[in-house]
Amino acid sequence: MSKAYKKIEIVGVSEKSLSDAIDGAIEKASKTVHGLSWFEVSELRGSIEDGKVAEYQATVLIGFKLD
Amino acid sequence: MSKAYKKIEIVGVSEKSLSDAIDGAIEKASKTVHGLSWFEVSELRGSIEDGKVAEYQATVLIGFKLD
Amino acid sequence: MSKAYKKIEIVGVSEKSLSDAIDGAIEKASKTVHGLSWFEVSELRGSIEDGKVAEYQATVLIGFKLD
Amino acid sequence: MSKAYKKIEIVGVSEKSLSDAIDGAIEKASKTVHGLSWFEVSELRGSIEDGKVAEYQATVLIGFKLD
Amino acid sequence: MSKAYKKIEIVGVSEKSLSDAIDGAIEKASKTVHGLSWFEVSELRGSIEDGKVAEYQATVLIGFKLD
Amino acid sequence: MSKAYKKIEIVGVSEKSLSDAIDGAIEKASKTVHGLSWFEVSELRGSIEDGKVAEYQATVLIGFKLD
Amino acid sequence: MSKAYKKIEIVGVSEKSLSDAIDGAIEKASKTVHGLSWFEVSELRGSIEDGKVAEYQATVLIGFKLD
Amino acid sequence: MSKAYKKIEIVGVSEKSLSDAIDGAIEKASKTVHGLSWFEVSELRGSIEDGKVAEYQATVLIGFKLD
Amino acid sequence: MSKAYKKIEIVGVSEKSLSDAIDGAIEKASKTVHGLSWFEVSELRGSIEDGKVAEYQATVLIGFKLD
Amino acid sequence: MSKAYKKIEIVGVSEKSLSDAIDGAIEKASKTVHGLSWFEVSELRGSIEDGKVAEYQATVLIGFKLD
Amino acid sequence: MSKAYKKIEIVGVSEKSLSDAIDGAIEKASKTVHGLSWFEVSELRGSIEDGKVAEYQATVLIGFKLD
Amino acid sequence: MSKAYKKIEIVGVSEKSLSDAIDGAIEKASKTVHGLSWFEVSELRGSIEDGKVAEYQATVLIGFKLD
Repeated sequence: MSKAYKKIEIVGVSEKSLSDAIDGAIEKASKTVHGLSWFEVSELRGSIEDGKVAEYQATVLIGFKLD
Repeated sequence: MSKAYKKIEIVGVSEKSLSDAIDGAIEKASKTVHGLSWFEVSELRGSIEDGKVAEYQATVLIGFKLD
Repeated sequence: MSKAYKKIEIVGVSEKSLSDAIDGAIEKASKTVHGLSWFEVSELRGSIEDGKVAEYQATVLIGFKLD
Repeated sequence: MSKAYKKIEIVGVSEKSLSDAIDGAIEKASKTVHGLSWFEVSELRGSIEDGKVAEYQATVLIGFKLD
Repeated sequence: MSKAYKKIEIVGVSEKSLSDAIDGAIEKASKTVHGLSWFEVSELRGSIEDGKVAEYQATVLIGFKLD
Repeated sequence: MSKAYKKIEIVGVSEKSLSDAIDGAIEKASKTVHGLSWFEVSELRGSIEDGKVAEYQATVLIGFKLD
Repeated sequence: MSKAYKKIEIVGVSEKSLSDAIDGAIEKASKTVHGLSWFEVSELRGSIEDGKVAEYQATVLIGFKLD
Repeated sequence: MSKAYKKIEIVGVSEKSLSDAIDGAIEKASKTVHGLSWFEVSELRGSIEDGKVAEYQATVLIGFKLD
Repeated sequence: MSKAYKKIEIVGVSEKSLSDAIDGAIEKASKTVHGLSWFEVSELRGSIEDGKVAEYQATVLIGFKLD
Repeated sequence: MSKAYKKIEIVGVSEKSLSDAIDGAIEKASKTVHGLSWFEVSELRGSIEDGKVAEYQATVLIGFKLD
Repeated sequence: MSKAYKKIEIVGVSEKSLSDAIDGAIEKASKTVHGLSWFEVSELRGSIEDGKVAEYQATVLIGFKLD
Repeated sequence: MSKAYKKIEIVGVSEKSLSDAIDGAIEKASKTVHGLSWFEVSELRGSIEDGKVAEYQATVLIGFKLD
């Protein structure tokens, strides 16, 4: 049977930066899913408290190979 | 390790209304997933029979916290 | 010959609510077209007078079977 | 000089329903701005707590006449 | 409780054609999930080697009924 | 008076393939409208039964010359 | 019964300019449909011959009141 | 502190033409805001009366420098 | 071998008007490329100085036949 | 009366990096508006001089609570 | 220096089918550019004559490695 | 003749970060094209190997002045 991938959507959260949030989303996915193959950033946002960024949030689509 | 969320896409169906379909999607998700945190409505549609709405269908993205 | 559907775009208008405007668009379409099969909400808007909603307007794509 | 309008983006929040959140956004805008003329719903979302909707949030573009 | 569906995103891969990749995505999903109900093609792409298509890749959203 | 075209939206349905569904939409349109000039594929989807595609559905915008 | 509108999509064509093509689409629609109420420009394009614009083409959505 | 701009959304209205409506939106903004720097046309539409354009409406995003 | 076209993206700039900017983009392309066949307007914007439009900018996709 | 937020669109500019431009937009907004609550990055771009980035520009939607 | 790719947009044309038009776009690109690496289908359309498809047209973004 | 720009689409690749990939795309473009004027980030993605990002990929539209 032909090869196939599944895409899941993970929101990484970081207090440091948006790139840290992107890396965090991938790191989190790699804890439970094997065969991660690529990622696509779909949204960059965050929360603000007292006029400063409290949380950077990066929504990342992550593709992995199905067995 | 940094905090992260997963987003899943649920289509709620109701014979009564679109808002009932939205609530139904969230209720359904809450039966199997813990830590639901937010939702985003992405599509509102439905089926028609004999000139009347037979089913209201609401596609809802639901975010929940990953452990 | 293969089965086919046509989609038309109707804007329902209601003084009561957006869901009433959606239902109104479908009811209006059912007066002149047979075989309505599904609908997709594509736009929700309205007019305001004296700080209150005067008209709720829902744009709805409606699909019906071609004979 | 020719007539003109300005559009602002308000997020209405309600514990009851999305339509209540839409109406709330317009009611809020009407407290500070005169000459509201139309609205466009651009996003429907909300927060979830304990498996139930805690807040319905509706993002609404609101147009008003400039003097 | 009201009926509901879940949508998952599968990328089918084929060396033969894009339609083969679409069918492959659905075949793969049917191996692990029951009650598949509909699909929506969201992306058509592929890889090229030596000036020829090496892999056709079709991203397909697949909806299935939740019990 | 200047030349003009009208665009209609037809969903072709086929049990065989998406390209057959596209061709079917155009064939259907040509039965009732003259002067068909071009088409644009806007959506590719279908229904699934018992893990296999039951219907391929192609939404096609079709432009034709107005007299 | 509540008020409703229908939207149709007309491509106006002009050898002179895009605004002439927009006006032409509306003029054409007014020949066969009564109660035209508003228009929305959705696409601006054209054909080129010998390095010069041969035809300006404007796709216009036109809303009219249903009786 | 780093330089920054704000974008506002103005709808210019003209009885003459869409380009007149665009220019009108910018002229209107320049009456109340200083430091206008660029504009982006986001929507072109209008109202129709008796089969003729009554109002051309151009939605324009306008960026200006914050002090 | 089958016929093919290439699309390039040109930004025309004019001090007079957006339609002049569109025509300028096509005129510029015709100086270096042969076989121009069609164009699609993808963006309309411009710069503002002293409260007046300094430059109209039109982004135009231009298709031409490959030999 | 129900709670509400307003969203404004700020373009942050930095000579160092896009993340610096994002932070700058939020810092600028916090100087004049109270109750900043969240941000959404909507555009990342910049100017180039002598083959090097001269300015990084980040367009950021910023939501704040209305009193 | 870091690796980079360029994306070009080719419209393949075929009298037979849309998949033939996609393959044709890639074949055409491979005649003049080396190092083709991937493709993305961005538009499927065609021309109609006498109620039948005269030309299938597939717009394809093609990425290739820069030396 | 009026001034004009051309936009090309470059994918920068970096093993370090997405901002490095953006800078790399511009650096690469500056090696072969003169008069680079601005850039727009259109896609952020990458490949994953062994649960870690192997390549950061940034798609960047780059505008340059035509002589």
